[in-house]
Amino acid sequence: MKNGEIMELSVQLINIKVGKHKVVLNNLDAKELGVMAGDRVKLKDHGYITAIVDTTDDIIPQGTIGVYHEIMEHINDAHTLEITPATKPASVSTIKHIMDGGKYTREDMYDLVNDIVKENLSDIEMTAFITASHMNCLPAEQTEWLTRAMIDTGEKLDFDTHPIMDKHSIGGVPGNKISLLIVPIVAAAGLLIPKSSSRAITGAGGTADLMEILAPVAFNADEIKSMTEKVGGVIVWGGATNIAPADDKLIRVEYPLSLDPSCQLLASIMAKKGAMGADCVVIDIPTGSGTKIPDVEQGRAMARGLIDLGARLGMQVECAMTYGASPIGRTVGGGLEVVEALKVLESMEGPNSLIQKSVGLAGLMLEMGGAASRGDGRDMAYEILKSGKALEKMREIIEIQGGDPGITSSDISIGDKTAQIFAQSDGYIVEFHNKRIVEIARLAGAPNDKGAGVLIHKKKGETVKKDEPILSIYSEKEWKLTNAINSAKKDSAIIVEGMLLETVRGQREL
Amino acid sequence: MKNGEIMELSVQLINIKVGKHKVVLNNLDAKELGVMAGDRVKLKDHGYITAIVDTTDDIIPQGTIGVYHEIMEHINDAHTLEITPATKPASVSTIKHIMDGGKYTREDMYDLVNDIVKENLSDIEMTAFITASHMNCLPAEQTEWLTRAMIDTGEKLDFDTHPIMDKHSIGGVPGNKISLLIVPIVAAAGLLIPKSSSRAITGAGGTADLMEILAPVAFNADEIKSMTEKVGGVIVWGGATNIAPADDKLIRVEYPLSLDPSCQLLASIMAKKGAMGADCVVIDIPTGSGTKIPDVEQGRAMARGLIDLGARLGMQVECAMTYGASPIGRTVGGGLEVVEALKVLESMEGPNSLIQKSVGLAGLMLEMGGAASRGDGRDMAYEILKSGKALEKMREIIEIQGGDPGITSSDISIGDKTAQIFAQSDGYIVEFHNKRIVEIARLAGAPNDKGAGVLIHKKKGETVKKDEPILSIYSEKEWKLTNAINSAKKDSAIIVEGMLLETVRGQREL
Repeated sequence: MKNGEIMELSVQLINIKVGKHKVVLNNLDAKELGVMAGDRVKLKDHGYITAIVDTTDDIIPQGTIGVYHEIMEHINDAHTLEITPATKPASVSTIKHIMDGGKYTREDMYDLVNDIVKENLSDIEMTAFITASHMNCLPAEQTEWLTRAMIDTGEKLDFDTHPIMDKHSIGGVPGNKISLLIVPIVAAAGLLIPKSSSRAITGAGGTADLMEILAPVAFNADEIKSMTEKVGGVIVWGGATNIAPADDKLIRVEYPLSLDPSCQLLASIMAKKGAMGADCVVIDIPTGSGTKIPDVEQGRAMARGLIDLGARLGMQVECAMTYGASPIGRTVGGGLEVVEALKVLESMEGPNSLIQKSVGLAGLMLEMGGAASRGDGRDMAYEILKSGKALEKMREIIEIQGGDPGITSSDISIGDKTAQIFAQSDGYIVEFHNKRIVEIARLAGAPNDKGAGVLIHKKKGETVKKDEPILSIYSEKEWKLTNAINSAKKDSAIIVEGMLLETVRGQREL
Repeated sequence: MKNGEIMELSVQLINIKVGKHKVVLNNLDAKELGVMAGDRVKLKDHGYITAIVDTTDDIIPQGTIGVYHEIMEHINDAHTLEITPATKPASVSTIKHIMDGGKYTREDMYDLVNDIVKENLSDIEMTAFITASHMNCLPAEQTEWLTRAMIDTGEKLDFDTHPIMDKHSIGGVPGNKISLLIVPIVAAAGLLIPKSSSRAITGAGGTADLMEILAPVAFNADEIKSMTEKVGGVIVWGGATNIAPADDKLIRVEYPLSLDPSCQLLASIMAKKGAMGADCVVIDIPTGSGTKIPDVEQGRAMARGLIDLGARLGMQVECAMTYGASPIGRTVGGGLEVVEALKVLESMEGPNSLIQKSVGLAGLMLEMGGAASRGDGRDMAYEILKSGKALEKMREIIEIQGGDPGITSSDISIGDKTAQIFAQSDGYIVEFHNKRIVEIARLAGAPNDKGAGVLIHKKKGETVKKDEPILSIYSEKEWKLTNAINSAKKDSAIIVEGMLLETVRGQREL
């Protein structure tokens, strides 16, 4: 103890990243200091830093403070630190107000998000925030505060030219490679579209996973802006930027609970769009059995929420409810999806579900951005795709991101371990769940193994003859192929029946 | 990889206790395995153990698995482990049902509590449980399931003699050393009272902290039973036992949020009583400004909840709403409180608030346990106290717990660094908040320094003359004394005014 007033402890480094500013005290020191696990202490070296306390009976001896990686960077090479108890951040009170319906201000919300970004909140505190916003969804105004705070605590793109176009898909439908078509169509029409995408979390491949097969996807905000200004569009990985960084931190606690509170979802989407400088945003809301939004009415409510939040933030938002109960196109998983998208760009060869959805959404964007008159967008998008202008633009995009612009669909490598699943009888495919298709593709190696995936010969509602192939599985590794085959065969992943039980018809509202 | 089928990783020990079964994977291995932070993996050594995954880009290299302390104990000295993805425990679904008002069974609740005890749930999952039960309090039947599960996942005492008496205080009132009087009174009347107590968390001293000044308090369940059978009562620290072990694990996530969901509070209290084998329980509910239960109506609701839960568990519960807006007695903090309690036992010398509350509650217990007729309990308790039988019993209790039975109030050492706070003018004490008294005692060193505390000369509502002492502060260390003095002087910890603003009258319902 220095001057008998402040506790001074020897530093013991713990070279583990815990995603927050955290230290470990021996219980005897914690008692002496009057703090418990979960409390805060202030550490003094040259400056001050506040850390969350964990306590132990043994591992860290009395007189010593265990310092995790995130703190190490702040304390230079200090051998000792002066420790005093500190109060909890005000954000913890804000979280309790959100839980209990108490009052808080826009500044309180900013401080909360800022503490999340600065790694000042524990998993416990962040989970309470997420659980509370799941159980008592934030009102529209507070969701706006949340979104603005998410934008303002990260990097922002600021373009000189407008409008800036953007699109987003709520996800949940396999094989949704439409961004690989929409971005070049929109950019080819002369609009700017700096598309940032995510990697798959529970899916078989996010847009960033797919684009990575064609070109690098990790760029910072300045690079994204400059590339977009040069060729009109990019398809990059949002995770490499510092755009709305709170989002990834929140996903870290949402994911283990499979929670995605609707206000958090709205804020997450619109914060990323706002930070990218978007003026006009089209949002694809896949609905139907097996999607994240099984119920159309729920999809409409989400659309209203997104449009309202966009208006609050000065963005024009249009939402397209799309049929999501079946995969888009016939491929699910990295390379297979890229091949399917490239073939459409190269020669319009490809499934109607993919082409129609892509030109439908691209057409909406052309209309919103003023490149086409209302009602003419879809035709214009189709024409850009058919004429080869979209392919040409895609090559420019691939090139500016550092890929090979000469790449064609036949250059993409697909796993050489393959198997086919055949129909056991004549009939119709009556059940073929999205989730099971994704599971098969993931077991085959997607999204990590780019050559892994599933090619769907027969979709739900289609007729099939005995011994015809229903799907082909591609894998880079024999044991993964085996696991995927076993999954495809069990639990009625695919059900063929001898009669059509119901008419399966697209519910799209495009 | 072994046989190309199962991932085999080298073990790197991380000798840190994290309170759960956790491992760290390099992100590349996690991707290959198809798991993310928060997912589970199964580890195979001789047997199997499931662990929660954390991920890192650097600290743990590819091909290696970082293994925290809690796992180390299970894997012996294995140098490599076979890793496969595992599903989340079903408890996570139960937590989501609690969040969303879904259905779950008694067995689901047992599994959830068992996973908490076995350290199978992450902080994120446990916090979701606590936050959900705070926001949507569990119905009575589910609270019963929770309580039974908390009892059944720990050690239980099973006495041959009945009834077993117990008491509990909801807490929140400083200086509440009444157990030191009640336990010997009840035991002296021939009833068995195995009293387990807690240490202070946010207070200046829990009953276990106080008793520890007189005798050891850490015993296992068998020792508690045998000592109780020999002398009629004990006052031990619950934390040393394996009684209702889920409780401490839940407190670990409740404390950082200052949450104490009422259903969790009921379950926590009654699980500990149930596991101790209690038949008759008296619960002290201090109400009034500055307590945990400021509102009497809220106190009554809690009483109804406790009585109902007791009935469901086969325990007879009576609740006493007591006045808690002022400290009990005139001392707050370790040694001072013990001196005050011993003086009452030795010679009935002491504040009326302490004597009356103690004999009131003890009297209730004597009636419930059949030692006194209804209406005669208080007088009998007073007589036992006054006759010296309670002192004699307390000495037996001290002795059987391994303390010195000859100890007297004058043997207790009190901090020799002292200061007094004087009235600046004639008047009445109009404000003297419980929380501020506790804060001053804690700054002086309580509960860690046994000699630290506060002696209150003038309580709220009492008259005081200019320059008369209002309180004395005792500390073992000069710098702590200074901090305590500064706190006592600032922020109107004590307000003296020249007129009586209101009549302060006890609201006790005893």
